Amino acid sequence: MFSVVGVCEMTILKSYNDEYGDVNVVIEALRALLGDKLVTSAAVRKQHGGGELTYHKAQSPDAVAFAQSTEQVAEIVKICAQYKMPIVPYGAGSSLEGHIVALKGGICIDLSEMTQVVELHAEDLDVTVQAGVTRQELNVYLRDTGLFFPIDPGAEATLAGMAATRASGTNAVRYGTMRDNVVNMTVVMPTGEIVKTGGRAKKSSAGYDLARLLIGSEGTLGIITELTLKLYGIPEKILSAVCSFESIEQACEAVILTIQAGVPVARIELLDELQVQACNAYSKLDLAVKPTLFLEFHGTENGCQEQVEMFKDIADEFGSDDFKAASSAEDRNKLWKARHDAYWAGCDMALGLAHLSTDVCVPISNFAKAVVETQQDVVDSGLMGPIVGHAGDGNFHVLLSFDESSADDMEKVKTFLDRLAARALAYEGTCTGEHGIGIGKAKYMRGEHGAGLDFMFAIKQALDPDNIMNPGKIFYS
Amino acid sequence: MFSVVGVCEMTILKSYNDEYGDVNVVIEALRALLGDKLVTSAAVRKQHGGGELTYHKAQSPDAVAFAQSTEQVAEIVKICAQYKMPIVPYGAGSSLEGHIVALKGGICIDLSEMTQVVELHAEDLDVTVQAGVTRQELNVYLRDTGLFFPIDPGAEATLAGMAATRASGTNAVRYGTMRDNVVNMTVVMPTGEIVKTGGRAKKSSAGYDLARLLIGSEGTLGIITELTLKLYGIPEKILSAVCSFESIEQACEAVILTIQAGVPVARIELLDELQVQACNAYSKLDLAVKPTLFLEFHGTENGCQEQVEMFKDIADEFGSDDFKAASSAEDRNKLWKARHDAYWAGCDMALGLAHLSTDVCVPISNFAKAVVETQQDVVDSGLMGPIVGHAGDGNFHVLLSFDESSADDMEKVKTFLDRLAARALAYEGTCTGEHGIGIGKAKYMRGEHGAGLDFMFAIKQALDPDNIMNPGKIFYS
Repeated sequence: MFSVVGVCEMTILKSYNDEYGDVNVVIEALRALLGDKLVTSAAVRKQHGGGELTYHKAQSPDAVAFAQSTEQVAEIVKICAQYKMPIVPYGAGSSLEGHIVALKGGICIDLSEMTQVVELHAEDLDVTVQAGVTRQELNVYLRDTGLFFPIDPGAEATLAGMAATRASGTNAVRYGTMRDNVVNMTVVMPTGEIVKTGGRAKKSSAGYDLARLLIGSEGTLGIITELTLKLYGIPEKILSAVCSFESIEQACEAVILTIQAGVPVARIELLDELQVQACNAYSKLDLAVKPTLFLEFHGTENGCQEQVEMFKDIADEFGSDDFKAASSAEDRNKLWKARHDAYWAGCDMALGLAHLSTDVCVPISNFAKAVVETQQDVVDSGLMGPIVGHAGDGNFHVLLSFDESSADDMEKVKTFLDRLAARALAYEGTCTGEHGIGIGKAKYMRGEHGAGLDFMFAIKQALDPDNIMNPGKIFYS
Repeated sequence: MFSVVGVCEMTILKSYNDEYGDVNVVIEALRALLGDKLVTSAAVRKQHGGGELTYHKAQSPDAVAFAQSTEQVAEIVKICAQYKMPIVPYGAGSSLEGHIVALKGGICIDLSEMTQVVELHAEDLDVTVQAGVTRQELNVYLRDTGLFFPIDPGAEATLAGMAATRASGTNAVRYGTMRDNVVNMTVVMPTGEIVKTGGRAKKSSAGYDLARLLIGSEGTLGIITELTLKLYGIPEKILSAVCSFESIEQACEAVILTIQAGVPVARIELLDELQVQACNAYSKLDLAVKPTLFLEFHGTENGCQEQVEMFKDIADEFGSDDFKAASSAEDRNKLWKARHDAYWAGCDMALGLAHLSTDVCVPISNFAKAVVETQQDVVDSGLMGPIVGHAGDGNFHVLLSFDESSADDMEKVKTFLDRLAARALAYEGTCTGEHGIGIGKAKYMRGEHGAGLDFMFAIKQALDPDNIMNPGKIFYS
């Protein structure tokens, strides 16, 4: 049906620079600037060179600079630029595709101590935060304002890290991704210059959209130090629901019709049979072992009720007969427990093995086919891999478990991932809906973007001629 | 309160190339390729060098190429690239800031004959169209599908032109702008290479967002030849409403509270007193001469009713006492007549004079201040300038009328526009919310973007080293 050839071949892009300067000189200069906020201990460097969640081989930076302000980041970058020193920006270290691995050594700029909420404009529904604020911290800060920030990638990620990887998550079907929810950003460019990508107007037609270019650029074009984000009123009412279907196809048909009907569902998540089984075991539940949708509805009291009824009718039409809804926070949490614990349940099912979470995204009309074929591929490969999907977006995750010490297992994983990416592209999708490229998916970029990759590379070269910004990510180095 | 200095100074950017090749050689090569689809008649060239709606001095291209396909555009661009020939892409010619003026002569590529709807995917709520399809044509095509494309910039613009200028309009408060509603594009790059910016997945984290970079690039980075656009279900119910307020401030407070309350209003438009007066005269109405809001609500039968009631309560709170709503298409059109005819009413009020429509956009909390100060500035300048605003977005238009033959009037207009841009920036806004930069607002780019402008320019130089793509737009040449 589709060919892996072309998708997985190495891109012909070569690093245009990997001659870097003397790191000791840089460390000395940075120590003068930062004092004990520049750390060179092996433990801290190691902790910054990998990330617990990634399956990529860790590589430590030569030093970690804990930045306190935009101006300080600019100073650090200027020093690195002067000596052609690689820079890896670091938020919470929660990325999955090796974005923070210091492939060329150099300086890791840790932004996690920049945790100020700079300015809240409730009337404009926006807030400006420093890079290191996490989404949970932001929502705690907003608690008494009646407002919230909806993007929820699952991890306790920093907001700048989420922008850098164009993160999304369960709420994206209703509220969009980071692409849609950043008003402007303050960015330190590879020269050390500070750029603000725009004002706080809700829209603008004034020139190139630098914010959108930097969102998803994974630290390869600049370092995001502040962001202004869109906020939303906390809905008057939240309802949750769960129901199962006889087949993935029927679950997906229900999702498609729900979205076509304009039901403004806030979350609509799919767990496949294997994932439900894992959740039953891990969270001590007795869900029917069938493809299951987890939903959340936001709106007015009446509006939510109307949405639930519309969805229930649709679910009925596609043969679901166990629709359950809940309203109080406690009942909603109970109902959604399986979804909340899905990742850990998947890991628990294969204790003692290594785990790897990957994602692809396809048009929703191809979602069922892509999921079913992937399930079969998991079985045929002799791997273990439950599937969780942001069904409303056509985005799904496979959590592979495997024996890292087995060359056979590693080969199985590698070829499975290549086929998964090729399948997503054959279905007019993308090799990643929300995890990003990092190191892991650079090899799929040519297959996905064709000549477009050369223009991305030209932009990279133009803005970062010495290739100091997170070298080796997105593009092969 | 704010300084015009800095905003209006000439940017220091100089053209990096304006040595172009021999146009006669290019015309000969294009004639061989296109036959009678290459036109060099003075009338056609003149028609393509200006645009009826722009106040910028027209300059004709040397020839107009009526392209029929992406591949043909690629061939044309390859020939132009070979001979370093300026290219100006042309859709419907409805842009306002001189985007299509052939400042350096060269070849105008007219895409208006590329009018195919390539593929409709109702299940995915997307449609792929060629560059020359207009939004009205698309909606006529979609009539029997229950779907529609919401972005409505007022003019009968082509969809590729709308993407190129990052257009929006009255529906943007609910449905976003072209930035938010393009899934992917096929673009002919300055080399003549054809790039597809992505698949049809609803989201992706795979590399730089070339689509968003090209949206709003005004033909300076490539030529959009096809677009895949997001569609929406036609709402079950549409309600319209109109109400007036004692002051701009009160009208704006009502708008802010409506949006904060999460009322998903589809359109919320402000007409100032002068505009209402113009509409009364032109459309033979007897609206109270007060700041007036025009609204539209989309949703289910109940949902719409609920929205209207929520809004009415808010309008009451801010002293409005003449709230009127309408449901049938005929009644809605009657109720909205003033808004629909606003532009022509504004022109009619100053018959015999020249007209110029400009726009700025500010955070909604600064909208009332920006509008009221602008009204005063119009009066103080001795100009005529009714104001219409997309109030939900903080975006407003001033329609200036003036005597083109009067140096005094022209100077008044020029300095008024400079102050308007400076005011928008002082209020953390942008010099244009939806009209774009073109020629007219290039001088404000440095004030708005600071060092960011240099990075935009670096991208332009990297992708178009010979400066052939719509030279002189966005950046000074």
